[in-house]
Amino acid sequence: MTDVVTEAGSQWLSREDLEQARERLPILYVDALPVRVDESGTVTSFGLLLRVTGHGEISRALVTGRVLYAERVRTALLRHLEKDLGPLALPKLPAAPQPFTVAEYFPVPGVTPFHDPRQHAVSLAFVVPVEGDCHPQQDALELTWVTPEEAADPHLQAEMVGGQGTLLRQALAVCGF
Amino acid sequence: MTDVVTEAGSQWLSREDLEQARERLPILYVDALPVRVDESGTVTSFGLLLRVTGHGEISRALVTGRVLYAERVRTALLRHLEKDLGPLALPKLPAAPQPFTVAEYFPVPGVTPFHDPRQHAVSLAFVVPVEGDCHPQQDALELTWVTPEEAADPHLQAEMVGGQGTLLRQALAVCGF
Amino acid sequence: MTDVVTEAGSQWLSREDLEQARERLPILYVDALPVRVDESGTVTSFGLLLRVTGHGEISRALVTGRVLYAERVRTALLRHLEKDLGPLALPKLPAAPQPFTVAEYFPVPGVTPFHDPRQHAVSLAFVVPVEGDCHPQQDALELTWVTPEEAADPHLQAEMVGGQGTLLRQALAVCGF
Amino acid sequence: MTDVVTEAGSQWLSREDLEQARERLPILYVDALPVRVDESGTVTSFGLLLRVTGHGEISRALVTGRVLYAERVRTALLRHLEKDLGPLALPKLPAAPQPFTVAEYFPVPGVTPFHDPRQHAVSLAFVVPVEGDCHPQQDALELTWVTPEEAADPHLQAEMVGGQGTLLRQALAVCGF
Repeated sequence: MTDVVTEAGSQWLSREDLEQARERLPILYVDALPVRVDESGTVTSFGLLLRVTGHGEISRALVTGRVLYAERVRTALLRHLEKDLGPLALPKLPAAPQPFTVAEYFPVPGVTPFHDPRQHAVSLAFVVPVEGDCHPQQDALELTWVTPEEAADPHLQAEMVGGQGTLLRQALAVCGF
Repeated sequence: MTDVVTEAGSQWLSREDLEQARERLPILYVDALPVRVDESGTVTSFGLLLRVTGHGEISRALVTGRVLYAERVRTALLRHLEKDLGPLALPKLPAAPQPFTVAEYFPVPGVTPFHDPRQHAVSLAFVVPVEGDCHPQQDALELTWVTPEEAADPHLQAEMVGGQGTLLRQALAVCGF
Repeated sequence: MTDVVTEAGSQWLSREDLEQARERLPILYVDALPVRVDESGTVTSFGLLLRVTGHGEISRALVTGRVLYAERVRTALLRHLEKDLGPLALPKLPAAPQPFTVAEYFPVPGVTPFHDPRQHAVSLAFVVPVEGDCHPQQDALELTWVTPEEAADPHLQAEMVGGQGTLLRQALAVCGF
Repeated sequence: MTDVVTEAGSQWLSREDLEQARERLPILYVDALPVRVDESGTVTSFGLLLRVTGHGEISRALVTGRVLYAERVRTALLRHLEKDLGPLALPKLPAAPQPFTVAEYFPVPGVTPFHDPRQHAVSLAFVVPVEGDCHPQQDALELTWVTPEEAADPHLQAEMVGGQGTLLRQALAVCGF
């Protein structure tokens, strides 16, 4: 859950204020798992980012990021998908505002399957079909498309940090795998 | 819920066998509400068919029809969407197999909000964004796109037969309206 | 969405800090609609609170409140249900963490159906069967149980503030009405 | 998916008619996974039946069975839960009619993760908290409560027939595991 937030302006938070808020309030996030679907809507592959973690290790990850003040959840999803997949990905957000699950990232590990040492983040998780060309941006090194079988691999899931392997597993289940 | 089923072949049912089965078993259906969405996935309009009912009246309706033996639910959805909207509608079925609700059409009115004098039909209901051109086929006279506000009109909903007004209302709620 | 927050301690927010955060970050809430169900799980009545609004008017409302730092969403739901319904209500939270919808309360009306002049609140909404005795507490004057038909009344829904009438309508739809 | 159907009467099917229908129509089923929850609604254990399969092997299974003509889905769920868990299980069906997934059991293996050599069954799957005493009945030998960790064991899941291990895995995901 790396987000390099550098918003300016009176409505948003300075890095310092954000640090302070992170010790006081649950911070609202979105998690998105990009998928490719066939003409019947069945998922054919799942898109995973390769990121460099804070410890310099490489890890697979979902698209993730903060919801800003006065920002719609949909807008935040589109913003983070564009940030990580580029402007030509053509994500198709679901018509319903209901997330497939809510991932509660706790600063202390073990409370839930999800963990974020920086903060208490509560994340609305969505599966998002993308139809266009994906070109990873910013701190995402690469985007890999894996088959449902590969995505179900416990080793792959265990490598993901913060419990995102659990989120991937839950998304697979939601998609019928 | 008009479907003119004339399948041949040993696996499927003759009209006579279907009549008989309809008195003995719940029949599996799908209901689909076609929608237009904007680039953020928000529904901008709902697609309603105009049909001639068995009594010669004109009524608004959802896309609906039976799931056949050995047919995937997804395939049935695509087949009925193509039957009613034409081959160029480009429906985008959801990645998850979960319907937004299950409508139980009873032969006796009043058991549930849904009623089908011909049979006990249990229908998996889906909201389906369509991106292409829609040209009603067969027994659908016309397809009308209505705004969320128009779709929420109790008079419009009350006109729909078999309780499909309730299904439209439920679909609106699922889409955040 | 009235919450009388009087938490002390370093982890939580002073009233002043909360005011400041409310101008900078979306604040995470939960909304709960208490219901009575029969032995088949069908909802027989919906529980609505009578509250005095900031303007001294009386309004029907859902159980609602903030999720605190390091608090589980489930814990927040139980805390607010107990606050409003008393300690003997015996709420039965759903096994799944998925809310039935996400209500985005914007400080400016008209962006979504939901509005909260104090803040940008994003609320996870749940239908919660309660089995015990309910005794409204604190700033809730009374709890009324209404039938699904009464709850569907557009006049009743229009009276509710902040768009909670829409949330009630969506909950009805989710419960099959 | 063993159901010993012995209904009499004109509305229901003779065993012979059922055999015939099974070659012609998708048959509507329900699958239920009984769970124990704590006071916050979190699942603490999952209930699995031990059954003797058609081949004389012992296998873990979900509660499952057919929906009858003119029977509500809720009624079918209660009937099969009582059949397998006894009359004192006190199942708490969800307020929403939406299943967590739809399992399509095909007569030919490999079309979906679900397989039933006898028929094309389409099953609405539910997680059902039970609060009372469970005493397996009829052809269920035993009911075992397993922890979420035990239920997640790939070996346990692989042992289950007809793809019910996949259904168990999907139910775990829906419950946040």
